[in-house]
Amino acid sequence: MKKKIGLLMTGGLLLGSTAHAQAPTVETLSISMDMVWIMIGALLVFFMHAGFAMVESGFTRSKNSLNILMKNFLTISIGSILYLAVGYAFMFGSSSGGFIGTEGFFLSGREGDIGFFVFQAMFAATCATIISGAVAERMKLSSYILITVVMTALIYPVVGHWVWGGGWLSEMGFTDFAGSTVVHLTGALGAVVAVRFLGARLGKYSNGKVNVISGHNIPLGALGVFILWFGWFGFNGGSTLAADPELIPHVITTTLLSASAGVIASAFYSQLRYKRVDASLTLNGALAGLVGITAGTGDVSPIGAIIIGIIAGVILVESVSFIDRVLKLDDPVGAIAVHGVCGIWGTLAVGLFSTSTGLFYGGGASQLGIQAIGILAVIAWTVATVAAFLFLVTRFASIRVTKEEEISGLDFAEHGSSAYELRESVFSDNSSAPEFGTGLVHRLNNLGSTKQKAKQV
Amino acid sequence: MKKKIGLLMTGGLLLGSTAHAQAPTVETLSISMDMVWIMIGALLVFFMHAGFAMVESGFTRSKNSLNILMKNFLTISIGSILYLAVGYAFMFGSSSGGFIGTEGFFLSGREGDIGFFVFQAMFAATCATIISGAVAERMKLSSYILITVVMTALIYPVVGHWVWGGGWLSEMGFTDFAGSTVVHLTGALGAVVAVRFLGARLGKYSNGKVNVISGHNIPLGALGVFILWFGWFGFNGGSTLAADPELIPHVITTTLLSASAGVIASAFYSQLRYKRVDASLTLNGALAGLVGITAGTGDVSPIGAIIIGIIAGVILVESVSFIDRVLKLDDPVGAIAVHGVCGIWGTLAVGLFSTSTGLFYGGGASQLGIQAIGILAVIAWTVATVAAFLFLVTRFASIRVTKEEEISGLDFAEHGSSAYELRESVFSDNSSAPEFGTGLVHRLNNLGSTKQKAKQV
Amino acid sequence: MKKKIGLLMTGGLLLGSTAHAQAPTVETLSISMDMVWIMIGALLVFFMHAGFAMVESGFTRSKNSLNILMKNFLTISIGSILYLAVGYAFMFGSSSGGFIGTEGFFLSGREGDIGFFVFQAMFAATCATIISGAVAERMKLSSYILITVVMTALIYPVVGHWVWGGGWLSEMGFTDFAGSTVVHLTGALGAVVAVRFLGARLGKYSNGKVNVISGHNIPLGALGVFILWFGWFGFNGGSTLAADPELIPHVITTTLLSASAGVIASAFYSQLRYKRVDASLTLNGALAGLVGITAGTGDVSPIGAIIIGIIAGVILVESVSFIDRVLKLDDPVGAIAVHGVCGIWGTLAVGLFSTSTGLFYGGGASQLGIQAIGILAVIAWTVATVAAFLFLVTRFASIRVTKEEEISGLDFAEHGSSAYELRESVFSDNSSAPEFGTGLVHRLNNLGSTKQKAKQV
Repeated sequence: MKKKIGLLMTGGLLLGSTAHAQAPTVETLSISMDMVWIMIGALLVFFMHAGFAMVESGFTRSKNSLNILMKNFLTISIGSILYLAVGYAFMFGSSSGGFIGTEGFFLSGREGDIGFFVFQAMFAATCATIISGAVAERMKLSSYILITVVMTALIYPVVGHWVWGGGWLSEMGFTDFAGSTVVHLTGALGAVVAVRFLGARLGKYSNGKVNVISGHNIPLGALGVFILWFGWFGFNGGSTLAADPELIPHVITTTLLSASAGVIASAFYSQLRYKRVDASLTLNGALAGLVGITAGTGDVSPIGAIIIGIIAGVILVESVSFIDRVLKLDDPVGAIAVHGVCGIWGTLAVGLFSTSTGLFYGGGASQLGIQAIGILAVIAWTVATVAAFLFLVTRFASIRVTKEEEISGLDFAEHGSSAYELRESVFSDNSSAPEFGTGLVHRLNNLGSTKQKAKQV
Repeated sequence: MKKKIGLLMTGGLLLGSTAHAQAPTVETLSISMDMVWIMIGALLVFFMHAGFAMVESGFTRSKNSLNILMKNFLTISIGSILYLAVGYAFMFGSSSGGFIGTEGFFLSGREGDIGFFVFQAMFAATCATIISGAVAERMKLSSYILITVVMTALIYPVVGHWVWGGGWLSEMGFTDFAGSTVVHLTGALGAVVAVRFLGARLGKYSNGKVNVISGHNIPLGALGVFILWFGWFGFNGGSTLAADPELIPHVITTTLLSASAGVIASAFYSQLRYKRVDASLTLNGALAGLVGITAGTGDVSPIGAIIIGIIAGVILVESVSFIDRVLKLDDPVGAIAVHGVCGIWGTLAVGLFSTSTGLFYGGGASQLGIQAIGILAVIAWTVATVAAFLFLVTRFASIRVTKEEEISGLDFAEHGSSAYELRESVFSDNSSAPEFGTGLVHRLNNLGSTKQKAKQV
Repeated sequence: MKKKIGLLMTGGLLLGSTAHAQAPTVETLSISMDMVWIMIGALLVFFMHAGFAMVESGFTRSKNSLNILMKNFLTISIGSILYLAVGYAFMFGSSSGGFIGTEGFFLSGREGDIGFFVFQAMFAATCATIISGAVAERMKLSSYILITVVMTALIYPVVGHWVWGGGWLSEMGFTDFAGSTVVHLTGALGAVVAVRFLGARLGKYSNGKVNVISGHNIPLGALGVFILWFGWFGFNGGSTLAADPELIPHVITTTLLSASAGVIASAFYSQLRYKRVDASLTLNGALAGLVGITAGTGDVSPIGAIIIGIIAGVILVESVSFIDRVLKLDDPVGAIAVHGVCGIWGTLAVGLFSTSTGLFYGGGASQLGIQAIGILAVIAWTVATVAAFLFLVTRFASIRVTKEEEISGLDFAEHGSSAYELRESVFSDNSSAPEFGTGLVHRLNNLGSTKQKAKQV
């Protein structure tokens, strides 16, 4: 702040006019304005990580809350640094075959891209964090870190190169404005494979029954959904990549309307289906509408957005049930239904509702066909690579905590502490946690006595 | 993001300069900049819904948390879609008599208004959600939805047309910069009428005593107040409707100072009055200062803002007590005092503190008189229409849950679940809730067995 | 909103082009854009107060939550108003000797500075609120208010004048882009002195043992860390003071990378040191990385930022232990380690990693020396003034609650209520709290009966 203030002080001029090194022109102002908008988008996408953390800890059991929070903090942290090191280069570096970028590691030679890089870095971590919800309550932290590494460093950047980095899907005309497929479907596919390798939580499918294991703090989860929705305006809005006065409000509007329609549809459809407005399904309905509109947010009309959201909300209710009861994939927060199934829906919806190329707007079926090809390609790539990676990893070590650790909770097992300081066991399934979550104090005390002992020797 | 990236990749140019279809001019840049600012405002107003949800669930009992969260999510969702369909047309469509707009349904013929529309859509839902706090813990979800529909589709848009849509109050010179009357008083009046129709919660006024029913999670409520305050900068700041480098910081400053003064005044006055710095009153004091400054935020000085906030903070403490103990209106979160009484105060304060027209600045009493006329008109319209609507509705069905449902909690009664997963009953008044909040699992399981039975037949 | 809408309605023109009183020029647009960016920064810094409130209440015991929340709300409120009255004048008013500004009280003669003022007002309150975490759970609210007054009105503005207000450190070339020293170290030094005067919490150091007193709600604290991180992008980013399209993304990137590195370093180092990924240390690692990058965010490279963050994360783990176990300063949330030790580290790091003047970039040791002089000067000033102030205050009254009040909790003792409405004592150390946190209702009831009695007489 130093240098600017020096100028500010001389004469008490208004801010700004003195703050530029050179006199501004229409061209420099235009660049500045685009950058301001993209940075706002980047910050909002960053904040989505708080939303994911709250949704994932609120919708699971209290004995695993610290573990989930650690996973969320480490995802954005590891993701950002790896995306600087290699991810951005793989995704936006120039390539010969359109498969993977091969230059720009550590932004070398691309220092001017830094604003675009940081916006994209927030996206990369978002893709990885989708997995953390699905594998909650049983995956080892260390194994989860390995998946985060491979997702943000390689698997996601390759998909991104195909669609946004000038790669082959982009050449073909595949349209995914802000990432229904690139971000959400890719993350959800990683989740599907990881859940297959992990298996279900203890007690989830027992005695031939499908048991619901309820979340411990739905208000916190609901706050998380609101934060995600708020951040999503930056996710979709920032993807305009320019302060375009027509496209930005269009994107904000379609995003709002689709999410709203998702909420209403899930609420009413869960009433129809289960005779109750189910809170978890309605909250996930907002996310379903958001994932659904992400691919087409710039290309569909407000009415189109509402229809996309309504269908997403209904699909959500059905697919949560289908994944849980038929596929028997244990996904504690519904991430596969929200990000995977609705990600596919949103990507296809472009082929139906795009006002320029959609089937319902006289554009024929070719866009729809291209969208389907893109989806299949991303499924093939992501499932194959994640499965190969986890196959390799599981040759050397288990990616799942032991049965005892799972019962006592990952907070105690992996972090030696608990999320809530409880005099007595309050939140369910916390019975094996110690009365005081004093992992650190014990370790500190033992450390002290170890040192004392060392001295005594 | 597709098209932009294509350009981005060719040559690795800086973002933005290439992103515009045409070369920018001073005029297009000015439009872009205004739009960016208004969209930031819109997003911040959206985020206020998270604040309302946290305040309302934190300040009430845990057994009704899911229900309140559902009301908040449905309000913004239903509000947005109805405001697109009819609300915006009623509010900003051209009118002959200045009473109600009559064109622009679904933005038809007004596609260029989309940015302004989405900013206003966030406001419309804010007005309705004020009611949800006051009717908490006893109103049926379905009846609340009906009120939301009529508020966002008709009652609020008409008030908005009068004041902001070029209607008769606007012609008269009535000044309400960001909605002390249009949004807050209108919402609070809906709340007053709804509470009169509903009656108090069980146990609130019993044996001639006025009982306080404490909230279950004040830290969550406090977070909600901070979120509301944060969002309010967009509510007031965005209402400048342009990236005006003098008006925007003025609005942000008066908003900050009035809210700050409200906090201090409520804290000290509650100490004086009750010998304690009462936490709920101090938190509501922030909101009182915010509602109080909303009408005059662009027209009063920083010192004026501080005085307005101090008075709002004191009024808040007295009116919470008056409404509860004298009027015996059971308002669990203090919404009527915050949004209604302080909304009136803020609207009148323009007539006193406006640096151009206020009584204390030599402007005479005419502005004050016009402000009073506006308040009375809005009271007459809102009370009459909401009362007529609820009179009609209550001819057909009760808008209140049964006594048994209220005792067991609306979460269990209306959603078959609970907000917290508790091994034993922890949060107060949760005793009748089931040990596991497994409404959905039971329904799912029953559904399964119903199907099996169907097959067996 | 009134006047603008009038224009809007005539002809349904696009927003904005009509909203300016005069035709925009390149110069006015440039001013507008800088202002929009600075205001975004200001709002994000404001939101950091929500983060502080959640971190501080989550990381302490539930019986003191209301008290901490009140402290946080009163800090921003008192700070804003005092900074308007005197703080801004002391900090940015012109001075003769470079020690303290002497004009501009209540912005008089500096009305045009209002945007810059409101950005700086948010900073001032941030400095003071750092203390509230360190003195939590035992300091009287009234005494804390006194410290807030002296910090925001005098102590912080003087430091600010030296570094940012054109004062002697600024003349010397001391570099502190966004306040590792000015804000964070100053606040932490206030905390050190206050803790020395206060002493440790009961039971913290007993029987020759160092006991950990765990926080009661880590998910809430983790949310607070995310909010702080989010807000910090505005804290550092807004400190560019202009919509600079190269500096802004640079600052956002280094801020993201250093915080990320801090998380990773703390997580891995706590695993190394204590055989566990400790949740509290990892969360504080994010803040350590953020404080560490604050001084150099505009002057170091992305790789430099990562190294600064890694070192900050390790320093954090060691200094939390050192302050607690060796210095025996009882700091419930680790504020002294985070803001003080890492504040020093960040300030020195400019002398090492600045790409223009840093030792590691061929700039020699002179910048490093100047940084050290600045740190020492700020230590001398802050410790001396806060100590003198508290020495004076403690001649007249105790700044600490009584033993009984501390045991029963400050929420009950100072606010007559509790943060959670619990049927039975759930969160630890809440045993002495009343079954219902109905302080207000009792006071209201007593008030009623007192009045009745008065009437009967």
